[in-house]
Amino acid sequence: MAVARYQAENITSADERERVRDDIHGLMTRYGVSAQHISQRAVNIMAPVSPLVSPGSAADFELLFSDPTGDGLDQRMALFDRMAYEVFERGYKEPGLPPPDDIIHVSCAGYLLPSPAQRFVSDRGWLGSTVTHSYHMGCYGAFPAIRIALGLIGSSHACLPHGKERVDIVHTEFLSVHLNLLAREPDKLVTSTLFADGFVKYTAFSQAALAGSGKRGLKFLALKESIIPESLQQMSLKPGPRQFDMFLAKATPQLIGDSISEFVRSLCKEAGVDFHQRRVDMGFAIHPGGPAILDQVRDGLGLDESQIAPSRKVLYEHGNMASASVPHIWKAIVESDTVPVGSLVLSVAFGPGVTVSGALFEKV
Amino acid sequence: MAVARYQAENITSADERERVRDDIHGLMTRYGVSAQHISQRAVNIMAPVSPLVSPGSAADFELLFSDPTGDGLDQRMALFDRMAYEVFERGYKEPGLPPPDDIIHVSCAGYLLPSPAQRFVSDRGWLGSTVTHSYHMGCYGAFPAIRIALGLIGSSHACLPHGKERVDIVHTEFLSVHLNLLAREPDKLVTSTLFADGFVKYTAFSQAALAGSGKRGLKFLALKESIIPESLQQMSLKPGPRQFDMFLAKATPQLIGDSISEFVRSLCKEAGVDFHQRRVDMGFAIHPGGPAILDQVRDGLGLDESQIAPSRKVLYEHGNMASASVPHIWKAIVESDTVPVGSLVLSVAFGPGVTVSGALFEKV
Repeated sequence: MAVARYQAENITSADERERVRDDIHGLMTRYGVSAQHISQRAVNIMAPVSPLVSPGSAADFELLFSDPTGDGLDQRMALFDRMAYEVFERGYKEPGLPPPDDIIHVSCAGYLLPSPAQRFVSDRGWLGSTVTHSYHMGCYGAFPAIRIALGLIGSSHACLPHGKERVDIVHTEFLSVHLNLLAREPDKLVTSTLFADGFVKYTAFSQAALAGSGKRGLKFLALKESIIPESLQQMSLKPGPRQFDMFLAKATPQLIGDSISEFVRSLCKEAGVDFHQRRVDMGFAIHPGGPAILDQVRDGLGLDESQIAPSRKVLYEHGNMASASVPHIWKAIVESDTVPVGSLVLSVAFGPGVTVSGALFEKV
Repeated sequence: MAVARYQAENITSADERERVRDDIHGLMTRYGVSAQHISQRAVNIMAPVSPLVSPGSAADFELLFSDPTGDGLDQRMALFDRMAYEVFERGYKEPGLPPPDDIIHVSCAGYLLPSPAQRFVSDRGWLGSTVTHSYHMGCYGAFPAIRIALGLIGSSHACLPHGKERVDIVHTEFLSVHLNLLAREPDKLVTSTLFADGFVKYTAFSQAALAGSGKRGLKFLALKESIIPESLQQMSLKPGPRQFDMFLAKATPQLIGDSISEFVRSLCKEAGVDFHQRRVDMGFAIHPGGPAILDQVRDGLGLDESQIAPSRKVLYEHGNMASASVPHIWKAIVESDTVPVGSLVLSVAFGPGVTVSGALFEKV
């Protein structure tokens, strides 16, 4: 943000630059999410120009925006396109990997046609791998993606000539492309220090294909999604001439805390599970929307802090990566020895609506 | 376009305005899609200010854009939001209609969070109706939507505690919100006269729910989607600071014509149907991307002009409504007495990739 201000206001003297850094540091300390909750975040609109000397030395970064106020949306989308394509290349670098039946591309940060997913599939010659875009669903975007994946596999076995075995889901949440580096409003300073770039790839298998693979995973027991009444104004994400504007009201964590218990009870009941009886032994993958949201969900569900530790850890190590957050927690739970195979795993996430979306899984 | 030019260049005299109209008329005659192919189109960024006197009297329209060069993307999205919400209200005006299990909102023209679909569901108190966005898939967008709908219903019966019975699909292709009214490039004049606003709602039922309803419909037999090799540059749709920019290369119809026969043969084979044997008795719902695309598909598949008449009719009466086009043709086929129940119905559409997506249905 300091570098953007130097450029925007043509600030060249060392003294002036120090004043700008102090000003921004003051705002950040007052309004930003503290390093106690988020230790590091990926912000790919900044490229290091020399080895970083100290956290205060902003001059060691260069902005990938050509205009200090941030490029127009077309140039931001071009930056997104390049970055997301690279994510696909890295996600499929394993040699000899056969093409999946389908790829679901998840994002709330960049929309192109052809999309990076379509370009990648075309360049690989995977002409029969169907690409489905699951866009603009915000922080709970992993849930629409997994219900689409379950649908593609489940319905192919139930009603179509050929059963599908493997659907890959790739999230490219390049959120920093939408940063407004000159903003000084408190809510913008919150979102600027909370959201982070996040990229993740995982796979939905048919039950038979998973069983043959020797892999661990999460099996669907129930899915549920619901809108909290009269909460439309709490969160928003809207494309504008320069960036997608995000808004997050202060009351949101409380609102989620008030409704989470009833939601989870009802989700578990669908699968014949009594949540209050079983909660001590369950694994939890709660979307780390922010430190206060985790507090509210922990208290609303009557959990110990230790039960939501995987969510705190992902927030601390990566920030809020929107839809890419929850899959990082699923990975930790699947790989964790402290959550035995056979455990129930509850996962919930939140986004505009205010929408609460969740799944009950069994670790298999 | 004339009204925008008057405003942008501050043209007030009657003589000057006539010159502008003649200039635009000349460009349109040379590059635009002719009235022989498209007789009328919905362009909802124009509001009539007095009863229309004659087709040449451009002054009888008022632009809903506040800026003659067209508003910024945020204002266009706000216009989209209002219009799309109204579409939901009109689509659900039947009194006493119970909420659907799910709503799939399809668009390549507007992305908001909360979306008009979420706002509508929240305002109705349909808090348990899951909203899934199927955005930015272009003109073949009805196919991702129906495969998601099939998936939601099929997988719920196959792998979840409660089987879903009804998934509504609502397309809001408010394409005119992205018109560049001052453009003079030939390809922009083609897209400006080809694309039209289109809105449509239809429903996916489980087989049991449809059987009990007494309705006619289309039953899935097979689905297929494929990218034509090395065709990435042919079509694109990209968000910019003002509008989503569409591009359509001249060679696209030929490219589709060259690959359509093999695609359709292979799609039909999946369901054990020999296309060349059965094509004389089938119904056809071909996306009317433009007059030349219909010529190419007709010739590529060896069809008579009469077999693609429903596509010509939708193009003539509405223009190319992107993803909302093919559902209008499905409706005509479902309601037509010349396509008997039990007929095979082949449907294909095209979009960036270049992607060809298709379904084989049985009319039931």
